[in-house]
Amino acid sequence: MRKNVMIIGAGGVANVAAHKCAQNNDVLGNIVIASRTLSKCKKIINSIERKGSKKSNEYSITAYQIDAMDISATEKLIKETGTSIVINVGTAFINMSVLTACIHTGAAYIDTGIHEEPDKICETPPWYANYEWKRCEQCREKGITAILGAGFDPGVVNAYAAYADRYIFDAIDTIDIMDVNAGNHGKYFATNFDPEINFREFTGGVWTYVDRQWVKKEMFEVKQVYDFPVVGKMPIYLNGHDELHSLSKNIDADSIRFWMGFSDHYINVFTVLKNIGLLSEQPVTTAEGLEVIPLKVVKACLPDPVSLAAQYTGKTCIGDLVTGRVHGEKKEVFLYNICDHEACYKEVESQAIAYTAGVPPAAAAMLIAEGVWDCKEMKNIEELDPAPFLKILNQIGLPSGIIKDGEDQPLSL
Amino acid sequence: MRKNVMIIGAGGVANVAAHKCAQNNDVLGNIVIASRTLSKCKKIINSIERKGSKKSNEYSITAYQIDAMDISATEKLIKETGTSIVINVGTAFINMSVLTACIHTGAAYIDTGIHEEPDKICETPPWYANYEWKRCEQCREKGITAILGAGFDPGVVNAYAAYADRYIFDAIDTIDIMDVNAGNHGKYFATNFDPEINFREFTGGVWTYVDRQWVKKEMFEVKQVYDFPVVGKMPIYLNGHDELHSLSKNIDADSIRFWMGFSDHYINVFTVLKNIGLLSEQPVTTAEGLEVIPLKVVKACLPDPVSLAAQYTGKTCIGDLVTGRVHGEKKEVFLYNICDHEACYKEVESQAIAYTAGVPPAAAAMLIAEGVWDCKEMKNIEELDPAPFLKILNQIGLPSGIIKDGEDQPLSL
Repeated sequence: MRKNVMIIGAGGVANVAAHKCAQNNDVLGNIVIASRTLSKCKKIINSIERKGSKKSNEYSITAYQIDAMDISATEKLIKETGTSIVINVGTAFINMSVLTACIHTGAAYIDTGIHEEPDKICETPPWYANYEWKRCEQCREKGITAILGAGFDPGVVNAYAAYADRYIFDAIDTIDIMDVNAGNHGKYFATNFDPEINFREFTGGVWTYVDRQWVKKEMFEVKQVYDFPVVGKMPIYLNGHDELHSLSKNIDADSIRFWMGFSDHYINVFTVLKNIGLLSEQPVTTAEGLEVIPLKVVKACLPDPVSLAAQYTGKTCIGDLVTGRVHGEKKEVFLYNICDHEACYKEVESQAIAYTAGVPPAAAAMLIAEGVWDCKEMKNIEELDPAPFLKILNQIGLPSGIIKDGEDQPLSL
Repeated sequence: MRKNVMIIGAGGVANVAAHKCAQNNDVLGNIVIASRTLSKCKKIINSIERKGSKKSNEYSITAYQIDAMDISATEKLIKETGTSIVINVGTAFINMSVLTACIHTGAAYIDTGIHEEPDKICETPPWYANYEWKRCEQCREKGITAILGAGFDPGVVNAYAAYADRYIFDAIDTIDIMDVNAGNHGKYFATNFDPEINFREFTGGVWTYVDRQWVKKEMFEVKQVYDFPVVGKMPIYLNGHDELHSLSKNIDADSIRFWMGFSDHYINVFTVLKNIGLLSEQPVTTAEGLEVIPLKVVKACLPDPVSLAAQYTGKTCIGDLVTGRVHGEKKEVFLYNICDHEACYKEVESQAIAYTAGVPPAAAAMLIAEGVWDCKEMKNIEELDPAPFLKILNQIGLPSGIIKDGEDQPLSL
């Protein structure tokens, strides 16, 4: 049994993870929230108090200021606070620093997305091989539990793929991961998480995995309209995404694709900003001689994603459409979750996109704490048994459904 | 007779003004090109040499680095170079500094747009009263010739209004100034002059002068399609513009409006940038703590307007549609100029928008040099006799046409 969790980051996803850890602190122990901006950590604690999320009063929740790029400072804080599990939900730029601090201190490591370097976009696939997987051997030698990509996508969608692989199909042909937000935040334009990370997903090309090969497409090049449960027909576009870069290695399938829903308005705004060069991660120099990264200025102009939650209405649907064979017969299933923005806000004061990304790493932490997923090496989600993970998620706010043989029903585990 | 001209600024308009001054240096004498960036001044001199624009070899053309906000440095340069006429075609923020330097040294002053303060947009009309006109009395006392708004619009369009007033109509009812660019620069998006000044024209409300009152409208609120000579039917939008702020005082008319042509694509890009806050002249702070003015970053991302000239094709049309009475009878005339991007580039290595703005101040300088417009006080263009101005423009590259009684013909002067 491991206890005491440190959450690194203090955005919307961190808020949800902190609420969920507090709701399960009988399993997880003390909670530390650490980020660059102490006031944002304290706001999360205020929200937890306001909502009465803490299950047991035996354990503390404390805020710390930290620069997570500073490995020794992170190690010091892990030791001082007796942390045995680190949930990294900060920016994608800090993954390798935080992972290093965990390897040095023996703490378990959980994240929800692939490491990125600020000046590089859309690197050579598989992306995990450029950074995280280089530490695989070191984690095994030292017995470090490191669970990569434990959000929703990557995360739960990897568990859906693993579930289909282990429990449904004899052989999988295709996996199409589909992520749509049928919600409305009421602003002219906003991203649902850090605009910098959001736009970086789309400004390079789009890596997709088709017929066991990496294929590069343009953003918004391939479109389809899919009829989702609950939210109905939505336009979705072939996109690149973190989970393809581990699923293509760990799941035996011909094609693994990721599709995301975009409104025409989103595409228009994105296209204008991109074509003008305002989404660039490379600096420009103003007439006055100031060096600035345009993307960081766009981020500063857009609404803080955290601020959207209170007005957000509607639902998200994220799932895996899997095709393959069962006893030689062709079969198709859709494993999915529906999440409601307003219900999320009522429970934890975040919207559904932060909720779907923030609940799973808390669930992963619980599985590590209980020893079920304390694997003592580096694993992507699909390498672990998906059943206990999906079972906890069913219980703590992210229930799964399955459409199978034309029937739509809850996923029983 | 006055001699020796200093051009302040080194953008596209300055390039045209310098070429035109060089083509007429027998009248204007030595030419000084002074701006913040010496290399840009030198580029203009190279262009003049490449095109053989210099008429007389008796007179020099020299480049100087200057910060035109520094009044005493400007005064020093005026004196040292024996300048008697200053053509200010730099950014709109330097007008009052340069005017002050002229008042102190006795040099004549010419500009092509109203003074602006960097942090203020769309101030109370009439705009001239906020800055330039406050120096009217001082100019009269000291006998300083200061000719305001001597570009095309403001500038030639004011002269068209004065021409209609003096030489055609007994009484004017309405003046509709219309400016369309039917050209194509081949870029995704670009402004035809300094993006900062260009966008500032549209980000505030739109002041228009209707029934002898200032009325505030939203940008792109009022649209019409007008059938222009040569370029044909174009969509135009009611807009605010400098010239309304002097014409409304100096010309007896019920309504004076300004219309500008915009493509749907321009409006879409403008709307996205504006709604996101990227056209703001007020600073934002990035997550990293850097204070930046978004509009300056947009400017840094967009193509340098000067760089568009070589690929520009098509034509501009700018003119005044004037209605009123002649001998008690209702009449309508359209006074206009057509300018061709490619022809401008061939002649002076600038596009038509810079050309139409840069030729008129050179013509005004010639009229001052010859004593015709050396009025020893501050004047807006429409307060001076338009005939000699339009006549010189006919000769040096901007011929005027007139549509009158259904007939389209050159304006003979």
